Amino acid sequence: MVKRVVRFGETDAAGVMHFHNLFRWCHEAWEESLERYGLHASDVFPNGIQRDESLEIALPIVNCKADFRLPITTGDHLELILFPEKIDMWSFQIKTKFQREGENVALGLIQHLAINAKTRQRCPLPEAISCWLEASSLNLGPRPL
Amino acid sequence: MVKRVVRFGETDAAGVMHFHNLFRWCHEAWEESLERYGLHASDVFPNGIQRDESLEIALPIVNCKADFRLPITTGDHLELILFPEKIDMWSFQIKTKFQREGENVALGLIQHLAINAKTRQRCPLPEAISCWLEASSLNLGPRPL
Amino acid sequence: MVKRVVRFGETDAAGVMHFHNLFRWCHEAWEESLERYGLHASDVFPNGIQRDESLEIALPIVNCKADFRLPITTGDHLELILFPEKIDMWSFQIKTKFQREGENVALGLIQHLAINAKTRQRCPLPEAISCWLEASSLNLGPRPL
Amino acid sequence: MVKRVVRFGETDAAGVMHFHNLFRWCHEAWEESLERYGLHASDVFPNGIQRDESLEIALPIVNCKADFRLPITTGDHLELILFPEKIDMWSFQIKTKFQREGENVALGLIQHLAINAKTRQRCPLPEAISCWLEASSLNLGPRPL
Repeated sequence: MVKRVVRFGETDAAGVMHFHNLFRWCHEAWEESLERYGLHASDVFPNGIQRDESLEIALPIVNCKADFRLPITTGDHLELILFPEKIDMWSFQIKTKFQREGENVALGLIQHLAINAKTRQRCPLPEAISCWLEASSLNLGPRPL
Repeated sequence: MVKRVVRFGETDAAGVMHFHNLFRWCHEAWEESLERYGLHASDVFPNGIQRDESLEIALPIVNCKADFRLPITTGDHLELILFPEKIDMWSFQIKTKFQREGENVALGLIQHLAINAKTRQRCPLPEAISCWLEASSLNLGPRPL
Repeated sequence: MVKRVVRFGETDAAGVMHFHNLFRWCHEAWEESLERYGLHASDVFPNGIQRDESLEIALPIVNCKADFRLPITTGDHLELILFPEKIDMWSFQIKTKFQREGENVALGLIQHLAINAKTRQRCPLPEAISCWLEASSLNLGPRPL
Repeated sequence: MVKRVVRFGETDAAGVMHFHNLFRWCHEAWEESLERYGLHASDVFPNGIQRDESLEIALPIVNCKADFRLPITTGDHLELILFPEKIDMWSFQIKTKFQREGENVALGLIQHLAINAKTRQRCPLPEAISCWLEASSLNLGPRPL
């Protein structure tokens, strides 16, 4: 479970959270999950500084969706619960439930596909992601979140 | 049809458009569509300066989704084709097709619900939005995009 | 001191943090500082849900600047050190130092002016902000960060 | 001169443009200026797809600042006037004036340094940027904006 406080710059003139920030929150919670599991960002994401050790596999998002149930405003303390799931050998998804004081306020879903960073053809999930997915779904060993 | 050039700040370290910008593009294209139809932003969106004339109806997004088919990069010239559609008397959706040189690169869908801005209970769509929807779907009179 | 981990979506195709995210980080660290001092977001920021209790004073930003010294990349663990300072009875500024493992990587500065939210004329700082500023600069009592 | 309409998602719960969007607008106007001058994005900005032809020179921002004079709201039609200027053989800046119906509403300034993308040591400005700067400041030949 990841905690997040909604900030002023994430609202719009209607006074509530502007919708697409939810996807940023989903992605950032996933990154925090990977980090808690023991993966470093440079194991998964490309990095402009360490160019020589560039990653061979990229994990682009192929689709995503969100449901918004209750208005979310500045200062809200949210709890994000992640449900990672392997789809097949090339792809996985992460569902993220957003709760405020135990109540569901929103839901996000992101699907990633593993591709070869050069050819951009699909390829098997990287070992690190497979392990994280297995640990996450089994809820055994080091819980990712 | 709305044109949009992809900008450097919309990419991430993988060198391609970072996914959630697509939703910002969808929303901005909708705003441009309303404007071309003859609606002013202050007819539809709340505004911090003209507080006395505040709008009675808000149009929060209740769900949205996107498909990403081909990588999009800095400098790409995209064409956005909007398909607005009334769902029922309280809600409508806008599908946005993203094309690059005639090829589909992504798809976005956003659903809005009309609510009373004070009570936050659902209410009939504002007259202005209904007219814009009708003109859009009939493709008669002033074409919204 | 506020901690922040740099996320993938905050980078651009050059592989490093895209510059304007620094200002978002500065603002969010200020919000965290206020919260730690005991202020609730609704004491300082307008809120679309509790419209009747709307704030009389707004705190728009009148200018801001940033220096970027070293590249910042995905996964970097940053420490943000805030230096809030009253400028005069109507305005204050917050300097934010960004460090990575004790090394300065960037610097942000934001100046706010207190205005009456309706007339938009400048007015004395709200009591809550004055107290937070005093506590912050004296480093006495509850340290804001 | 670049035109820009302020969009709903660029406001915050105070009902006005959220400050750091100004820097995004400055950068995007610069990109449009380069494009009008005849430069393609891939001549200046790194690109995740054409990895083999990666650029040797990066142009990171070393500092930036902004002044905000009047509130900017959804639907405002802004005119951006760019004043690019060479600082020395390694760096340049772009001042951007934001006007609404001829009135100054904000000002942004961004300074870039040319560096070797691998060594990250400063280097002379790329030929393409030097030409664009010269054309811009002389106001001769193809006007960049």
